[in-house]
Amino acid sequence: MFEVTILGTSAAIPTHRRRPSAQVVTINDRHHLVDCGEGTQMQLLRHKVKYARLDAIFISHLHGDHVLGLPGLLNSLSLYERNFPLKLVGPAGLKKLLDFIFEQTHSYLNYELEFVATEDFSPGDVVYETPKYKVILLPLEHRIFCRGFQFLETNKRPKFDFYKAKALEIPNQYFSLLKQGNSITLDTGRVVTPDEVLIPADPPLSFAYCSDTRYSEVLVDYIRDTHLLYHETTFLENLKERAAETHHSTAREAAEIARLAKVHQLVIGHFSARYKDLTPLLDEARAVFPNTHLAREGYVYDLKGIS
Amino acid sequence: MFEVTILGTSAAIPTHRRRPSAQVVTINDRHHLVDCGEGTQMQLLRHKVKYARLDAIFISHLHGDHVLGLPGLLNSLSLYERNFPLKLVGPAGLKKLLDFIFEQTHSYLNYELEFVATEDFSPGDVVYETPKYKVILLPLEHRIFCRGFQFLETNKRPKFDFYKAKALEIPNQYFSLLKQGNSITLDTGRVVTPDEVLIPADPPLSFAYCSDTRYSEVLVDYIRDTHLLYHETTFLENLKERAAETHHSTAREAAEIARLAKVHQLVIGHFSARYKDLTPLLDEARAVFPNTHLAREGYVYDLKGIS
Repeated sequence: MFEVTILGTSAAIPTHRRRPSAQVVTINDRHHLVDCGEGTQMQLLRHKVKYARLDAIFISHLHGDHVLGLPGLLNSLSLYERNFPLKLVGPAGLKKLLDFIFEQTHSYLNYELEFVATEDFSPGDVVYETPKYKVILLPLEHRIFCRGFQFLETNKRPKFDFYKAKALEIPNQYFSLLKQGNSITLDTGRVVTPDEVLIPADPPLSFAYCSDTRYSEVLVDYIRDTHLLYHETTFLENLKERAAETHHSTAREAAEIARLAKVHQLVIGHFSARYKDLTPLLDEARAVFPNTHLAREGYVYDLKGIS
Repeated sequence: MFEVTILGTSAAIPTHRRRPSAQVVTINDRHHLVDCGEGTQMQLLRHKVKYARLDAIFISHLHGDHVLGLPGLLNSLSLYERNFPLKLVGPAGLKKLLDFIFEQTHSYLNYELEFVATEDFSPGDVVYETPKYKVILLPLEHRIFCRGFQFLETNKRPKFDFYKAKALEIPNQYFSLLKQGNSITLDTGRVVTPDEVLIPADPPLSFAYCSDTRYSEVLVDYIRDTHLLYHETTFLENLKERAAETHHSTAREAAEIARLAKVHQLVIGHFSARYKDLTPLLDEARAVFPNTHLAREGYVYDLKGIS
């Protein structure tokens, strides 16, 4: 299971329909929150994400629309009596910001925040790791220090083809040896090699989150062949200068990055409040990279379904 | 025009249906925000309150569920290019909290915040005033420094009864003298006194906002005869001890305050997340004070309609 749930799609100013940035990456029932704009805890409730057992939170940068939902969410987890640590990955200033807010609002968490400062790592470094997947830091270029995150499956094992083994009349006691990659010799003297009964592992799935950033080809090598790329798209190409000025991207630029990196699918989000109808952004991106979709709040992307 | 729009009804933890505290008091097209829990700016958009021209913001206390929506809202006003001052009334720590958050999130407001610290006033003092209404500080008893706010119409003038004046055959040139409260003498020698053509002013309308507080009869004298009282109701009476411990009120206690103060109507809110169905809270309050209503998000109370 590898799913991405979109919770917020607005740029700095929310609109009637769009809320600030937040996404949940769910891998094998483990939930990871990526960015946490104002209202994220309400979005988690609305879209029925069981966030009480959240595994880790990743914050790209310290602009308010990516972080102002965090104090309330962390506080609610405490009121729900969470009593085990929570990993928090983000810019060093985040810890300072939270400590000050908690102090001033008289809040005390009853669980530990295990804080990891992204400044202590270089792009490409692993900032979070489990036996089944890892999270890699991505270089983004924004007005302030900002990093993206790539979630990448690891150690995918080939699957054992039980029916094939049965058809080859291999007794059950040999199965675990074969699963571990050993050849075995049957009583008949016939040698069975693992490749006869193993189905090669699916390629590792990956999701890259890139918000906020200006057009930057430096990113391309880091996200090559990624299955799902979320790339910010604050403006249309006719506001390219405004995008450059504010260190944001246009729809065409996001699509160009997707095309150069040969990703499988592109989702665009972080839309400026000036766009009521998002179709022009989608059309502009699709002209460069056809497999582009608009981020929609509540929508769940199943990465296994992306070929 | 004197209206109260409910934007948030939850206690500390929001639920799927209830968001943290926030209300808008609109008097003669001037909007005042009272408390600003996380997500308030989205609630303002959702319930179509034109907040770009917000006149003043009042914050009762510094617990997160009453204040964490403020940095985002103030920042959005700035991005919408507000360029005139905004009055902000609240505990002294609020200014410190906002300054620190703006610094850490690299936000700069392009308008002035005129900050008024509630610690500098005593309960009963006027903290905000216009020619038509004023706002008075109310004593609340919470775990931390907390003040309520009473909005009270002032200087209500009698209305001139044009048709009565016409029926009395008073020439137009005397109208303004009569409106100003002077007697006049007609050419016929007849003296007309103002009370013959003036309709007495309606009694001044008032709204009192009381959140969060434990049961406190000290409050009663301050809010006597108030038209609409919003009083927090975090718990049912069977959790009275929990209420006392956390400095919150039960439904029965809120109703008791309304009954003692002889207010016209009571609205209860700030409901604990444990209550899915709010009917028991309403029933408990109505047993003591029948004209009680449940705060519902998006609902607008028209104070002119409260007899």
